[in-house]
Amino acid sequence: MEQPSWTPCAPGVWTIRHGSPDAVTLLKAAGTRPQHEALQRLGTPLLPAPCPEARLRTVGQRTVVTLSKRLEEALFGLGLNFKQLGINQTVRDLHVDHYSGQDNGRTHAPVPFYLSDAGYGVLVDCARYLNVNAGGAHPVADPPPECDRLEPGWEAVRPGRTVEFSTTAEAFDLYLFAGASLREVVQRFNLFCGGGCLPPKWGLGFWYRVPIRFTDSDARTLVAEFAARDFPLDVLGLEPGWHSQSYPCTYEWHAQRFPDPAAFVAELKAQGIHLNLWENACVSPASATGRALAAGGLCGDYAAGWGGLIPDLSLPEARRIWGENHRSRHLAIGVDGYKLDECDGFDQWVWPDHATFPSGLDGEQARQLYGVWFQRFTDGLFRAAGRRTYGLVRGSNAGAQRFAYAIYNDHYDHRDFITALCAGSLCGVLWTPEARASDNADDWLRRLQTTCCSPLALLNAWASDTQLWSFPEVMEEVREILQLRLRLLPYLYSAFARYRFEGLPPFRAMLLEPGFADPAAGSAAAPGVLDGTKNPYSLAARREVKDQYMMGDAILVAPLFAGETQRRIVFPAGTWHDFHTGAEVTGGPVVTWTPADRRIPLFVKAGAIIPLLPPVNNLTRAGATRQTLEIRHYGNAPGRFTLYDDDGESFAYETDGGRRVELKAWRDATTGQWRHAPDDATLRDALPAYAGAVWHPAWQAP
Amino acid sequence: MEQPSWTPCAPGVWTIRHGSPDAVTLLKAAGTRPQHEALQRLGTPLLPAPCPEARLRTVGQRTVVTLSKRLEEALFGLGLNFKQLGINQTVRDLHVDHYSGQDNGRTHAPVPFYLSDAGYGVLVDCARYLNVNAGGAHPVADPPPECDRLEPGWEAVRPGRTVEFSTTAEAFDLYLFAGASLREVVQRFNLFCGGGCLPPKWGLGFWYRVPIRFTDSDARTLVAEFAARDFPLDVLGLEPGWHSQSYPCTYEWHAQRFPDPAAFVAELKAQGIHLNLWENACVSPASATGRALAAGGLCGDYAAGWGGLIPDLSLPEARRIWGENHRSRHLAIGVDGYKLDECDGFDQWVWPDHATFPSGLDGEQARQLYGVWFQRFTDGLFRAAGRRTYGLVRGSNAGAQRFAYAIYNDHYDHRDFITALCAGSLCGVLWTPEARASDNADDWLRRLQTTCCSPLALLNAWASDTQLWSFPEVMEEVREILQLRLRLLPYLYSAFARYRFEGLPPFRAMLLEPGFADPAAGSAAAPGVLDGTKNPYSLAARREVKDQYMMGDAILVAPLFAGETQRRIVFPAGTWHDFHTGAEVTGGPVVTWTPADRRIPLFVKAGAIIPLLPPVNNLTRAGATRQTLEIRHYGNAPGRFTLYDDDGESFAYETDGGRRVELKAWRDATTGQWRHAPDDATLRDALPAYAGAVWHPAWQAP
Repeated sequence: MEQPSWTPCAPGVWTIRHGSPDAVTLLKAAGTRPQHEALQRLGTPLLPAPCPEARLRTVGQRTVVTLSKRLEEALFGLGLNFKQLGINQTVRDLHVDHYSGQDNGRTHAPVPFYLSDAGYGVLVDCARYLNVNAGGAHPVADPPPECDRLEPGWEAVRPGRTVEFSTTAEAFDLYLFAGASLREVVQRFNLFCGGGCLPPKWGLGFWYRVPIRFTDSDARTLVAEFAARDFPLDVLGLEPGWHSQSYPCTYEWHAQRFPDPAAFVAELKAQGIHLNLWENACVSPASATGRALAAGGLCGDYAAGWGGLIPDLSLPEARRIWGENHRSRHLAIGVDGYKLDECDGFDQWVWPDHATFPSGLDGEQARQLYGVWFQRFTDGLFRAAGRRTYGLVRGSNAGAQRFAYAIYNDHYDHRDFITALCAGSLCGVLWTPEARASDNADDWLRRLQTTCCSPLALLNAWASDTQLWSFPEVMEEVREILQLRLRLLPYLYSAFARYRFEGLPPFRAMLLEPGFADPAAGSAAAPGVLDGTKNPYSLAARREVKDQYMMGDAILVAPLFAGETQRRIVFPAGTWHDFHTGAEVTGGPVVTWTPADRRIPLFVKAGAIIPLLPPVNNLTRAGATRQTLEIRHYGNAPGRFTLYDDDGESFAYETDGGRRVELKAWRDATTGQWRHAPDDATLRDALPAYAGAVWHPAWQAP
Repeated sequence: MEQPSWTPCAPGVWTIRHGSPDAVTLLKAAGTRPQHEALQRLGTPLLPAPCPEARLRTVGQRTVVTLSKRLEEALFGLGLNFKQLGINQTVRDLHVDHYSGQDNGRTHAPVPFYLSDAGYGVLVDCARYLNVNAGGAHPVADPPPECDRLEPGWEAVRPGRTVEFSTTAEAFDLYLFAGASLREVVQRFNLFCGGGCLPPKWGLGFWYRVPIRFTDSDARTLVAEFAARDFPLDVLGLEPGWHSQSYPCTYEWHAQRFPDPAAFVAELKAQGIHLNLWENACVSPASATGRALAAGGLCGDYAAGWGGLIPDLSLPEARRIWGENHRSRHLAIGVDGYKLDECDGFDQWVWPDHATFPSGLDGEQARQLYGVWFQRFTDGLFRAAGRRTYGLVRGSNAGAQRFAYAIYNDHYDHRDFITALCAGSLCGVLWTPEARASDNADDWLRRLQTTCCSPLALLNAWASDTQLWSFPEVMEEVREILQLRLRLLPYLYSAFARYRFEGLPPFRAMLLEPGFADPAAGSAAAPGVLDGTKNPYSLAARREVKDQYMMGDAILVAPLFAGETQRRIVFPAGTWHDFHTGAEVTGGPVVTWTPADRRIPLFVKAGAIIPLLPPVNNLTRAGATRQTLEIRHYGNAPGRFTLYDDDGESFAYETDGGRRVELKAWRDATTGQWRHAPDDATLRDALPAYAGAVWHPAWQAP
């Protein structure tokens, strides 16, 4: 049994290296480079005390690391979960897969990173399946106290003093991230992994993915209808039908459906609309790309369930061949991004664990990494072209923070989608609760409201042809939330800049919020009630706040779900206001909120400063001229907001760091009137996108 | 790559041995001995043609066996599944676990045995987790035909030409079972594994498990109430509260709840009631047994989630200590069996995969085998005492056929329970769809009807205290099905004798039935309909008959589910009759059946001979005197039935083979009248349990 100690490797970050790790790890595959300067700015904490001690041993074919914890520590993380944020006394098999309705470790981004409320997080940098027991394992040498099941206080799994990971990798590196709060731990983790992504501005507008059989002329008609109906549109996504053949794919345009793709893309661009192409990594052997990949021996030894070669994206030559296709057929004519489907699983779609790839990888490693490789590969293509991308991917893992991709899936449970949005912020990924279809107008509105308050605002009509206006009774509310999405660009883009430069997730779980206290935390869990068919182990319901979240620094989003007319909201400390009306929320911190209308409940803290664009229907067109900001300053408290800007599409920000203006509101000591800064001239000077600002102190809806 | 060939190892059975298998395998742990004589009687088929070829190779840490199949073969099996019987193009991780709602390989008995309609079955004798791709893997060297997803005929997973198993075991033995039908393959598999179990007669009566806090006096009152209300009762099961402490357990009687267990058991015995004790394998370190096991170093290195030592049951000394407790405290006073809970999982209840046991086993092997060990261990205890047991267990695996245990769980979905009952017959295990509680009278009646037509007829009131009479509006129907269960003893016991001596499961899927043709089989599957939120891969619904089954050789059970007043039934070839009325069923083979009353739909084939006991409320009391059989002969066809009998409780049948009488009915060639044999004297002579028989030719309900 080895008991190594933590060695510093970056400000606030320590590592344990031992043995001979696999040649491919999560961080190596992602090509992450720690942001040392940003980490330095975040602070240089000492090793947490008490600090998790790590013990390493080999048991048969498995390497086991046991990390100590105190009984009372609350643990979170372990990837993109959909049911719970807390992970105490759970067992997970971290395995990239389509989420199948249970938080068992099989998910789109099973990031082996957990956080403790004792002020640290741990990453296991291993690209193999990992079994994790988060605080529920009990070595016989340290048994839990005994309790008769028939007596009060019995629990099915008692808290333990370890977190254990095991895997068939011979060795792996561990990383420890310190932090005075969970928020700071997450920031440090994200910065160590390269910082968060900064999507192009257009990516923060509204997205629409077309039905699978759409032609260019269908798309033209649709775009015209969006305009005629006065609905925003920034990105059009083409689904499988754009390929000459899909599942397996050719990555070549369908001659009948898209006879002149260059003209089609140019026509969209002229309207400020960006194009995103669906694909999966199953290459038709009959396509030019497939022939070249096969001739080079650059694919795995198994085909997908529907056929198709799987390129080994860890090989430069495979990237070169596939990339050349993408460059010449897509990027060269103006395509701005991709959606990579099915790189997560299911098991029966993809290669088996015992598949081999020409680089020497096996199927298990390829499974854990494929989505990350794809992100890095396409990021590289667009980087070489000097323009940013924003896309969708169905599989990811640790270290992919800097790639501008949002994860999506087919699970389609609105509540679970919100929890995933929270969970993503704990593991360095973005999640989009895309809207596809609904049985009724209420559900449709609620889902569209949520997606408009998420990293990627998307109506995916690939299979349903449901339109924004399919439910006329909510059409006005739908238009309103879409327009609000676009108006929030200055605010959201600034939030993403913090993700990029400070590691702070732009959409995040409440437990990352200063001043937030979960009323259930720390209280004795209510004992579970025995039910022989529904709860045979008398499990106590885990109470946690997972159905509301923060959007940027100031806006608390409390989505409503179909059929609901009110909901419980837990506010962080302080005075909060209704974003829509400006009215103060009374009776907190736990409030039962009954909205006066069908808008999504949004709240801001007193003093919040929210910069908004004027109403627009396309961010690219809006960006062509200087815009006058509407700046709402809420409540009766001074405030500040760091408004970030840059050109919105190039990588110049990586060298020049972008531009910032501090928006400030304070009460004049003499007059008692609200004052604000900067003035229009200063704002114009600092940020070329804006002509000036109209301030609304103590904002109230007109 | 090795490509070994099949070597004969028993009549109709071949094996491939290679490399160095683990010291512990499924069949070794179960201690199975092939029934060579019975196999010989079943026939000596040639190696099937075409025969699956096996190729073996090592990929990284995994050993992979690839078995060939033809594209069109239909595959079944891979353990106790709850949703589907067919397994084509599915991927499973065979792993003993509580069933969690998806057929993904994690189940109570993930038996690595599959059957092909091409006339064979294959067993992988490996006690490690096995990943299986059943016909959906596509080596790039043999790719599936390409088809554009947008064209008709596209399928998400195309049929392939292999079944692949992979595992971290270095090597494992393979077995191939031939058979002219799936039924014969199953028989051969079961006989090779030692033949099926023959429970004691009392085990085929009605079981009731008491609420968790029951005392001896509660039990006495309950037994009296059963008698007063005229409900059958054969077995009483005590739940955790009988232990002085449970979870972890002491295996010692609770001093207040059961102050005089010997007297209590004797009192039950005097009424013909047998006692079964709940336990799990988590031994309290403070108990006498726990201290002895710990002192001997005989337990695994992890405690259960609720605490408790896990004995290494592969060690004779652990069995001796734990067994001595069971013998002296339980068997010696007349306890007749056990229910072993939680030996399946969940992951967080039990030891991790990297646990080690003093025999050298690791946690993975212990997980795959614990239920089997427990069955063998307790079977041995009762065998040494010269009396049979029948019990319940939540984990099992290949090779445990001869142990008289039924599997149960907490999943509690009535439809899935029926499918499990069918699936069990394809993998050598028995399943009980126990009734626990219901929201309404209809559901309660339907569940009780199903459990009375299953291997173990059980009301498990451990957590609900729901009684047979809790819904007065169905109480008469409940009493009727319970009494029918007991009356069927001669019939059911004979069916179990076929399981024991011929390997034929007593409760079985329709596809094991001669003359049964699934109307969906062979027909082109209806193409799946794309639905972006419910069926994004346009999967074709797998149509198969999994909601009806055979009970013994003659009775087709077609359960109704709560809220239903009619159902679809698919009959095997021939003329069928309503069991309850004798009326002929018209319009087959596929019939929409609307029962005239609330009885469970049961059917028998023309010519069926069903021997029934007179109405009784306890099989042990009924067995104390010679009973006169009522023999129903259905329809207008001659018939035969092999009535089996023995003492019903000892192991004498293993040496003397039991006793059999051929019941026959035929039409007199001269008079045209029905005749039958044997006469009462012959019957009395052959089978001491019976006084004679009253025959009902062309039986119709009075």
